[in-house]
Parts: sequence; C-alpha cells; structure tokens
Amino acid sequence: MSSLSEGLTQILIPVAAILGIGFALLQWYLVSRVKLASNDSSNGYKEKLIESDEEEEGVNNLEMSIKCAEIQHAISVGATSFLFTEYKYLGIFMGVFGAIIFLFLGSVRGFSTKSEPCTYNQGNTCKPALANAFFSTVAFLLGGLTSVLSGFLGMKIATYANARTTLEARKGVGKAFITAFRSGAVMGFLLAANGLLVLFISISLFKLYYGDDWEGLYESITGYGLGGSSMALFGRVGGGIYTKAADVGADLVGKVERNIPEDDPRNPAVIADNVGDNVGDIAGMGSDLFGSYAESSCAALFVASISSFGISHEFTAMSYPLLISSMGIVVCLITTLFATDLFEIKKVSEIEPSLKRQLLISTVLMTAGIAVVTFFALPSKFTLFNFGTEKEVKNWHLFFCVATGLWAGLVIGYTTEYYTSNAYSPVQDVADACRTGAATNVIFGLALGYKSVIIPIFAIAIAIYVSFSLGAMYGIAVAALGMLSTIATGLAIDAYGPISDNAGGIAEMAGMSRKIRERTDALDAAGNTTAAIGKGFAIGSAALVSLALFGAYVSRAGIKSVDVLTPKAFIGLIVGAMLPYWFSAMTMKSVGSAALKMVEEVRRQFNTIPGLMEGRTKPDYANCVKISTDASLREMIPPGALVMLTPLIVGTLFGVETLAGVLAGSLVSGVQVAISASNTGGAWDNAKKYIEAGVSEHAKSLGPKGSECHKAAVIGDTIGDPLKDTSGPSLNILIKLMAVESLVFAPFFAAHGGLLFKFL
Amino acid sequence: MSSLSEGLTQILIPVAAILGIGFALLQWYLVSRVKLASNDSSNGYKEKLIESDEEEEGVNNLEMSIKCAEIQHAISVGATSFLFTEYKYLGIFMGVFGAIIFLFLGSVRGFSTKSEPCTYNQGNTCKPALANAFFSTVAFLLGGLTSVLSGFLGMKIATYANARTTLEARKGVGKAFITAFRSGAVMGFLLAANGLLVLFISISLFKLYYGDDWEGLYESITGYGLGGSSMALFGRVGGGIYTKAADVGADLVGKVERNIPEDDPRNPAVIADNVGDNVGDIAGMGSDLFGSYAESSCAALFVASISSFGISHEFTAMSYPLLISSMGIVVCLITTLFATDLFEIKKVSEIEPSLKRQLLISTVLMTAGIAVVTFFALPSKFTLFNFGTEKEVKNWHLFFCVATGLWAGLVIGYTTEYYTSNAYSPVQDVADACRTGAATNVIFGLALGYKSVIIPIFAIAIAIYVSFSLGAMYGIAVAALGMLSTIATGLAIDAYGPISDNAGGIAEMAGMSRKIRERTDALDAAGNTTAAIGKGFAIGSAALVSLALFGAYVSRAGIKSVDVLTPKAFIGLIVGAMLPYWFSAMTMKSVGSAALKMVEEVRRQFNTIPGLMEGRTKPDYANCVKISTDASLREMIPPGALVMLTPLIVGTLFGVETLAGVLAGSLVSGVQVAISASNTGGAWDNAKKYIEAGVSEHAKSLGPKGSECHKAAVIGDTIGDPLKDTSGPSLNILIKLMAVESLVFAPFFAAHGGLLFKFL
Repeated sequence: MSSLSEGLTQILIPVAAILGIGFALLQWYLVSRVKLASNDSSNGYKEKLIESDEEEEGVNNLEMSIKCAEIQHAISVGATSFLFTEYKYLGIFMGVFGAIIFLFLGSVRGFSTKSEPCTYNQGNTCKPALANAFFSTVAFLLGGLTSVLSGFLGMKIATYANARTTLEARKGVGKAFITAFRSGAVMGFLLAANGLLVLFISISLFKLYYGDDWEGLYESITGYGLGGSSMALFGRVGGGIYTKAADVGADLVGKVERNIPEDDPRNPAVIADNVGDNVGDIAGMGSDLFGSYAESSCAALFVASISSFGISHEFTAMSYPLLISSMGIVVCLITTLFATDLFEIKKVSEIEPSLKRQLLISTVLMTAGIAVVTFFALPSKFTLFNFGTEKEVKNWHLFFCVATGLWAGLVIGYTTEYYTSNAYSPVQDVADACRTGAATNVIFGLALGYKSVIIPIFAIAIAIYVSFSLGAMYGIAVAALGMLSTIATGLAIDAYGPISDNAGGIAEMAGMSRKIRERTDALDAAGNTTAAIGKGFAIGSAALVSLALFGAYVSRAGIKSVDVLTPKAFIGLIVGAMLPYWFSAMTMKSVGSAALKMVEEVRRQFNTIPGLMEGRTKPDYANCVKISTDASLREMIPPGALVMLTPLIVGTLFGVETLAGVLAGSLVSGVQVAISASNTGGAWDNAKKYIEAGVSEHAKSLGPKGSECHKAAVIGDTIGDPLKDTSGPSLNILIKLMAVESLVFAPFFAAHGGLLFKFL
Repeated sequence: MSSLSEGLTQILIPVAAILGIGFALLQWYLVSRVKLASNDSSNGYKEKLIESDEEEEGVNNLEMSIKCAEIQHAISVGATSFLFTEYKYLGIFMGVFGAIIFLFLGSVRGFSTKSEPCTYNQGNTCKPALANAFFSTVAFLLGGLTSVLSGFLGMKIATYANARTTLEARKGVGKAFITAFRSGAVMGFLLAANGLLVLFISISLFKLYYGDDWEGLYESITGYGLGGSSMALFGRVGGGIYTKAADVGADLVGKVERNIPEDDPRNPAVIADNVGDNVGDIAGMGSDLFGSYAESSCAALFVASISSFGISHEFTAMSYPLLISSMGIVVCLITTLFATDLFEIKKVSEIEPSLKRQLLISTVLMTAGIAVVTFFALPSKFTLFNFGTEKEVKNWHLFFCVATGLWAGLVIGYTTEYYTSNAYSPVQDVADACRTGAATNVIFGLALGYKSVIIPIFAIAIAIYVSFSLGAMYGIAVAALGMLSTIATGLAIDAYGPISDNAGGIAEMAGMSRKIRERTDALDAAGNTTAAIGKGFAIGSAALVSLALFGAYVSRAGIKSVDVLTPKAFIGLIVGAMLPYWFSAMTMKSVGSAALKMVEEVRRQFNTIPGLMEGRTKPDYANCVKISTDASLREMIPPGALVMLTPLIVGTLFGVETLAGVLAGSLVSGVQVAISASNTGGAWDNAKKYIEAGVSEHAKSLGPKGSECHKAAVIGDTIGDPLKDTSGPSLNILIKLMAVESLVFAPFFAAHGGLLFKFL
C-alpha cells in the first residue's frame, strides 16, 4: 500500500493546483505594477509613469507611453477578435465531433443501456458502453474548453505584458527581462494548474457515477486528452498560418522591396504580424502543451486503471500521474524565484544563460521531487498491464521512468539551444554561408536542421528503452509526464520569446531610440532560442506521449502485437510515415498563398495611399488583419481534416492493425520532420539576428543591415518562418492527436473496424 | 513442374543477355556514325563532316566541330581520371570489407570446415559456414566489379555521345534527340544484360562446388547484391558531391556575381561541372540501378531457395527472377525501336510525350511478357517460405505480384513527371512564386516536394499489400523485379538527361548560335524531368527491394516477428527513421563546403587571371576539377561509413530485433525524404528553365533571363542541386544497402549479436 493516504491525496492535488493559480496571479499583479498610460485616461494623465530615479532616456516621456498603450491596444483587440472568430468555428467543430464520438462509441454495443462484464477486471460488472460514450463526449468537451481557456489566457497576459516590457526596457535590460519572464510565468502556471485542476475535478465528478468501475471511468477520461489536442491542432495550424502569412508578407514588401526596418509603423502588415505572435506562438503553443499534458496524464491513468492499481482500487497509486504534476508545480514555483528574485540580469549576455539555468534548476529539483512522490505514493511492488501479460514492477523502477523522461527533456532543450543560438558555431556557420548568397545559406540551414535531429532522437530512444523496459507502456506514459512535469518553467521561458518579440515591435512602432531597440532585440534573440527550446520540448514530449497513447490504444483495441512483417501493419507504417509530408505540404502552401495575398495588399497600400512611405498618413492595418484572419480560418480546415479523419477512415476501413502501423509510422517520421523544421527555422532567424547585432568581428564582417549577406540572411529567415512556426510545431500535434483519437475510438474499431478487408 | 525444361532455361537466359549486349553495341555503332573531328587529325581534316543536304547553320563548320571535339575530350579525360582515382580508393575498400565479410561469416561456426545439417532443407547436409563465407566474399567482389563496370561504361558512352548530340542539334531537334536517346539505350542495355549475365555465370560456377546445397549457394549469392550496392553508394555520394560542388560553385560566381550565362567557357568551373554530370548522374545512377537489380534478384533467389522450388530442386522455377529479367531485355529492345525508328520527333513539344510513351509501351508489353514467363516457368501450384510457416501459392498469384510492381513503377514515373515537368501547374506555380522573391519560391518548392510524396507512397503501399498478401516476401521481391524489369528503357530515358545537359554545355562553350542552344535547352528540360522520373523509379524500386531484403534478413536471422511494441524494436525504428536525416546532413554540408571552396577558386581566377572576363585567356579548368575531385573523395567517407557501419554496430551490439527496427525505420522514413528531395530539386530546376524559355504568356511575364524573378529562380535551382543530385538519390542506396548488408551478416548477428543487451 502507498504511505500516502487516500484522503491526503484528495487534498494535496487541488492544493497544489490552487497554489499554482495563486502564484500566477501574484506574478500578474507584479507585472501590472508597470503602469501604462491608458488610451482613455491619457488626457488627464499627470503623475510620473514609472517610479525610478535612473536618468534613462525617455523614462518620463508621457507621449511614448501613450503611443505604446495605443499599439498594445490595437494588438490586443486584433488578437482577441481573431481568437473569438476562431473559437466560433471551433465551437461548431466541437459540437459535431462530440456527436461523432457519442454515436461511434454508443454503437459499440448497439446503444444498449445494460451493464456489462468488464474487459480487464474480470468477474466484475462495468457500466454500459453507452455511458462511456456519453462521458467520453463530456470529457472531450471539457478538454476542449480547458485548452481554449489556456490559450486565451496566455494571449491575454502576453498582450498585457508586451508594452510593459517595452517601457521597462527604457530602464535597462534586466527590468525588461523580469517583466517578460514574469508574464511568461503567469501563462505557465495558469496552464499547468488549470489542466491539473479540471482533470482532477472531472475524475472526482465522473466517479460519482462510475463508483467502482474504474475501467470505464478512465476510459471516458481519455476524451479529455482528445478534446485538448484537437483544439490545439486548430490553434497551432490556424495561429501558425495567421502569424506567418503576416510576417512573411510584411517582410517581403517592407524589408526587401521598400527597405524599411522590421516592425516599422508604416508597414500595413505590422499589426497583423504582432497579433500573429500572440495567437500563434502564445495561444497555439499553450493549447499544444496543454494537450500534451492532458494526453500523457490520460494515457498513464488509462494504463494504470487496467493494472493492479486500478483493479485493486488503490486511489493514491492510481493518482501517481496527478501527484507528479502537483509536485511539478511546486518545483517550478521555487525555480521561478531564482530568475525573478535571486539573480539579477545586468548584461545582455546574461539573458540566455539565465534562461538555461532555469531549465537546469527545475530539472535537478524535480528529480528529488519525483523521488519523494514515488516513495510516498506508490506501493513498493505492484503489477502493470503489458499487452495482455502482467509485469512485476518495483516503485524505484518508476522513479527511473519519470526521471529519464525529465532528463531527456533537458538534453533535448540543451541540444536545441546549441543548434539555434547564435552563441555557438552551427548558427555562425549558417551566417557565414550568407557570404556566397541565399542559396548556400539555405543549404547550410537545411543541413543544420537535419543534423540537429540526431541527439534528440538518441535521447528519446534511450528514454523509451529505459522506461519501456522498466515499466512497459505505463513507464512510457510517466516518462512523458516527467518531461512535462516542469511545464510551468518550460512555458515561462517559451512564452517569454513572443512577448519580447512584441516588445521589440512596439519599441520600433513607437519610434523609440536605437538603444532601447537594441535591448529588445537582445531579449528577442534569446527568445528565438527559447522558443526553439520550447518546441523541442513539445516535440520530445509529443513523441513519448504518442507512444504511450499508442500503447494504450493497442491495449484497448485488444491487439497483442504490431508486427511489421504483416502486410496490413507495414502499409500502415509507410503511409503513416508519409502523413507528416502531406500535412506539411498543406500548411507550407497555405502560408505561401496567404503571404502572396498579403504582399499584394501591402504593395497596394504603399502604391495607393499617398504619404504612407513618408509617415504622414497611417496605413490600413485592419485590412491586413482581415486577410490573415480569413486565410488562416479557411486554410486550417484541410490539414485539420487530414489529421482528424485519417484515424477514423483507416480504423473503419482497414482495421486496428493498419491503424497501429499508421500511428507508429507517423510518430517515427513526424518527430524528425518536426525537429528539423523547427531548428532550421530558428537557426536562420538567429543567423540573421547575428549579422544584425554585429557583436563579434566575424559578425561585423558579414553586416551591417542591408548588406548583401544580410539580404541573403533575410531570405533564409523568411523561408524558415513557416517551417518553424507553422509546419514544424503542428506536426507534434498530428502525431499525438491521431494516437489519442485512435485510443478514444478503439472500442468502435475493435468492434466494427476493417470493413474493406472483410469484403475483400 | 514447369513447362519450360531446365536445359532450355540454361540457354534462354544467357541468350537474352547476349542479345541485349548485341543491341547495345548496335546502338553504339549508330551513334558513332555521327562523325566528330578528332583533335589529332584536325589538321589534315578534309571531308564533309556530316552528310546532309539541309542548309542548317553551321552544319559544315569544321572549326565548330573541332571545338566540340576538344571540349568533349576535356570532359572525357576529367571524368575518366576522376573515376580511376575513385576506383583506387574503392579497390582498397573492397579488399578490406571483403576480409570483414570473410572473417565475420567464417566465425559463425568457428571457421570449421565440416559440413553441417541444413537450416531449412531439414534432414539434408549443407556445406560448411566457412564455404559460405568464402563464396559470399567472392560474390561481393564480383558484384562490386560489375557495378564499377556498369558505371564506367555508362560514363564512356555518355562522354562519347554528348558532343555528337550537340553537332546533331545543328540539323534539328529530332536528330539530336535520337542521338542522345540511342546513347542512353547503350547504357541501359549494357547494364541490364551485364548484370544478368554475370549473375547467371556466377550461379552456374558456384553450383559446381555447392551441387545440391542450394541453400548455401543462394545464401552466398547475396554477396553479389552487397558488392553492387556498396559500390553504388560511393559512386552516388562521391559523384553527387563532385557534380554539385562544381555546379553550385560555377553558378554562384558565374551566373550570380559575374552575370555570364551557364556553361560559359570563361567560367573556370565549367569543365568540372560537365564532368560532374557524367560521374554523378551517369556513373552513379548506373551503379545505383544495377545495385537495385542485383539486390532484388538476390532477395528473390534467396527466398526461393528456402521455398519449395529450392527444396525440391526445380531449376526453372528457381530461375524465375532471371527469366523475368531476360524477358525485360527483349521487351525493352522492342520498345526502343518505337522511339528510334517508328516515330520521329519533329517539334520540341514532342520530346517529353515521346519519352513518356516509352514508359507506357514497355509497361504494356512487359505485362504480357510476365504472363508468358509465369505460365511457362512456374508450376501451377507451389509453396513459399513465409517467416517460419509455409504459404500455398498459385502461379497466377505471382503474375499479379510482378505486374503490380511494374505498374506501380509507371504510376511513380508519371507522378514524378507531373510534379517536375514545367508543362503542368505545380512547377508553373513555383515559377510564379518567384515574383515575390527567392523565399516564396523556396517555400512553394518545398511544399511541392512534400506533396509529391503522396501518390508514390500509395502506389508503393498498394504494391506491397498485393504482393505481400499473394506471395509473402517472395512476392515483394518479384514485385521489385517487376518494377526493374524495364530497367533498360528506364535507364535509357534517364541517361538521356545528363547527355542532353552536356550537349547544351558543349554548345555554349563552343559558341554555337542561340537557335542551337535553344534546341539543346529543350532537350535538357525534358532531361530534367526524365532524370527525376529515373530517380523516382530508383527510389520506388529501392523501397520494394529493401523490404524484400528485410524479409530475407528476418528469415535468415530466424526472427519470427518484428513487434513494434517491444522496446528493442521500437528504438530501432525511431533511430532508423533518423538515419536519412543524419546522412542528408552530411551530404548537404559536404556539397556546401566544397561549393564554397569552388567559389573561392573561381573568384580567384576571375580576379587574378588578366583577360579572362574578356575571353582573351583561358581559365585554369584543371584546378577546379582537382577541387571537386579532392572534396568528393574526402567527403564521401563519413556518409559511407555511417551506412556501412550502422548495421554492423547495431547488429553486433543490440542484436537482430533492434536491427530489424532500424531497417524498417530507415526504409519508411528514407523513402519520403528521397522522393521529396528529388522532386523539389527537379521542380526548381524546371521552374528556372520555364522562365528562361518563356514559351507561354505567363512564362514571358516572369522572364527574361536576368530579371528579378529569374534571379529568384536561380537561387531555388542552386538549393535544389544537392537535394536532387546528392542527398536524395543517395538515400535509396542507404535503405537498400543497410538491408542487404544485414542479410549478408545475418548468420553472424544471429549467432553472436546483441552483446550490449547480453551484458545489461
């Protein structure tokens, strides 16, 4: 038995969640102390804006503060209105897909309301399939709502913090860093705590109906993961197309044709570009990581429910995944204090090491945390379900499973940093290749992306081998949770990126001095790296999560082995490996076409609005926002349909073995495409920033802005945009989502799937 | 029993091979009738060069003919000297690796010289493992030699035909087409016939020792495939780096910086560039397809030897794979007559349809040919080995296996043509994206490459499903043979590409008129498409071949299933899927670095050699040839080592299951990377040619040469060079070679492999 009592577990989990929410609100309060002249009160605004004695340039400049507030307002309005429009469509989708879930799962036993013998907990009676269908649908809707909430709140705080970061940059890089980082932390903690709390409450409520039928209870809960991830898909794809259409369009005309700087207020697409950062990189990323978190919890809970924990009803041991996440919130809380209170950033060069230190501290602390949770929550010996057989496991085995996942995440994070930060030779080599033009820049960048796959894949492979050998599929699921246990810190340093990017944009648009712009640029360069790190985490955890889901699916579909040497499985494998390419083709092309439309509109405005280039008249920002919105809403449907329909079609027509092949194929192929796409894009972006910043002799020899080298670097950066912010990060949702969808629909496929082969 | 007697089989196979060689020599003779003023006799040269009454420009221009002869001589000398240097290194490799094969396989039973009980043919006695080690080594060396010979002969005829094609272009596009096509046919027939003949002779000679031990005989013969494919790897990688270093280097300085046309004789890298086409696209491609052919034959023969054919010693049925290839030679011979004698090309627009028609004719005729061979060579009923069990099969089942492979090849070829020819919208869209610069061109090109994967993968998946279901692993192997049965035609239209490319280069260097250059450009544009088709075939057949080899490996290693749900197999799968990326990173970077060196040298010559830009002095071609040679020989070692060592290391340390995972992973992932890389590159090249040719209103609006659009297109073309000619086509060798190597070493891995897991 666990040393931790059931009652205490029932208390500890919600307490940790509430602690996380409280901490997030505290950080929000601290950010809000940076005062911004609001648009409405600006007429009668009298008092000093920021209490500071430092004589920094423009600190007391009221006009600048008002300008920042205006720009922030425009960005916030744009982002909010886009998200609301998006959510309207997603609401319809949720309704339709919820109905599909109910109908498919309800039909498994012909909508019978009679209780049935359990599948795994033999000899007992379980609730009817119809109840599982109903509760799966409810869980699906809850997951979707939580995901949307996570993304929306993230966007709100980000658009609240961006101008404040700009204003703080007047006082120094350290102050600006703290503001951006705290805001990131708000998002990280809100998301982690929210996800945990909703899941915990759902389980508690579902239990009122299910009682002792834990098999059915946790089967239904998997709908939560599906809901979270399907929202994440549309968030990522829609947001990704939005942001990159605007970004690419703005750059192509502004930087390349008109030779005006990035984020120049004369560029009509500039607001759309900044809105995009918030709806794509913030809201999309938030939904994505929430999805991973929800899915790995659901996969772990499902496998546990058919193992000895579930069968002998040990609630504390059953809640091990939730306890790990609770401990994660506490650990991240302590970790955050290191960045915000214990150390202070004084120089630009300290930003990246400080963010890296956050990762390391949280990983070290969490290792101890895992040991504590494992020791108190798990019995010293138990059995786990392992594809029809049982596996005898000791509690310290599970410690190693979770810890391997956690440390694999750190390795992936550090590798990503090495390949995308301009402090190291890979990015510098790419920058150097700009000497001979855009073509060599692109060739070197692609090679860098391919190369950056090697170490993460070995890290994932080792984590899989260790956790698979020690804890079967449950081991994989908790390894994924281990990687995600420090999600609050991961998201904080990740969200920091787009906030800094926005801050830089606002500084440029408000016409702040070169000095301030240099500071925000430095924050932003670090942000590109941390964004890449965040994507690395998202992809690494997605790989583990989808393997865990895959295992859960196979268990639930009653497959004993997925043998590559059978034609059914092999064709699934090769077609599955193709899907990431099909998906990327769609998203890349969508960005390209939307960007072309944006280019036309921006050109049109420059050509037809008199005085625009001279800065005498304002461009029509709203039209560009509209183009991005329309394009992203229209273009997110085909890739979304590809991902959502593939498991349904394959499972129904070809059956569970082929579907298993598809999942394995898309997993092993998609991970590579996703990592290489993200890192290539990150490297190109930072190679450009390296040339622009010109901090070393080497960098100076390539610059300055506007040189031939720099132009070549801009081309690379533009190509990288859809790779790193649309295709790459959407792919990890593709692999997770297909797996969780297969898991949810597994009972249906097992009962009625494989129609085509039955007829042949 | 087969209706075809053993004696007749023994005669028919060599007769078909000799017929193929004879036909190749006839085509060579026809090409040689185009007279070229040789360098030596040019002083006393009197008679009319070409008997023609047409009053075409320059037809009787002796000076031009001498110039062409000179250039051809330089290219031929460069290519020959590179290949000889390469073969010197490869000779050392062959010796060392041959010794490794002998030692590893000899050690399986501790170098015992005693006969042993057979593995499959139970109750009988087989030759000792030491004999298999010896004969595998001999087969390996024979395969290597045949591969080298195939590549070398191809290069010889190509460098013989290029200037002749140029000269014929003075008389019209039809004449030039026939010359280029006939030369391609020489290569295709020589290669197909040679491969068949050497294999047949080897089997006959090995039988003198093995007698009734067919198990050991065909086990040893698999070394032939390994030898062929390992030479192909170095040929493809070395040749690919050579050609693209020169091409990219020449373009970056010549076209972009100095604004001189492609293939301008003032460009110091121009000879290296043209040499590269011959050593990379011709010799490399020849070795590659020979490797596929040898491997699929070996895989089919091996599986047959442990099926009822082998066990009951039915020679004719056993030789079914060789009979299919024999029939292929006859069918291709008839097909060639359609292009050379029955139809005549009169207009530029007829070139591509004519080449496509070749594919269609050969496929239709071959379908009948397969039916004939299947009916006469196979008993109406027999059993096939199927992973430890036996499968009852009828002869018409095998007809469907071979035919599905054949038709899948046609689908792949046509799809490739659709995505890479500038006659269709995909390439035209990419060209259109050049309006907004290089970045959108690259984004659209990448998206096109990803998209072009979809149909080929479905074609491969269907072929696998049908042939796997009907004929187990033997079905897959003969499906691969089916796809390769029309190899002579495939190679003819493929080799046609680089020959036309060279012809265009020679026309430019010899200073011929714009009209002639337009004709060779049109031949070349069709050549880009056919080259892409050839690569599509190579990749598609590689997928089938490596699956067949994979099956043979699994059978020989005694594995009963490769279950993705075991940690050992899964980590193999994900690491295997990573290998194509690692490999591509190496080859892309190699091309990039070598191109940078080339750029420096070309710049240096332009800057330091007085009168070079004005055409008064000649550049130092030899130095550029040397840079390409050195770079390619040095840089081919790391990727070569990655491919050759991976199976050895994984098999020895991690054992047969993990190695099976690696093979499956690299297969399903590598196919996608290879197809998308080839087609992206081909599309960019033809998008550029589309703008240059300006045949439609749309194309004219993007051009002419030197416009901003055209510059953007040139950047795309340059990026595509290493993708389509180095990384992409090398990848299919990666997947085949690892599979055949695993097959050859399987007895060793089964006996001594998995050391690491044994210690853990």
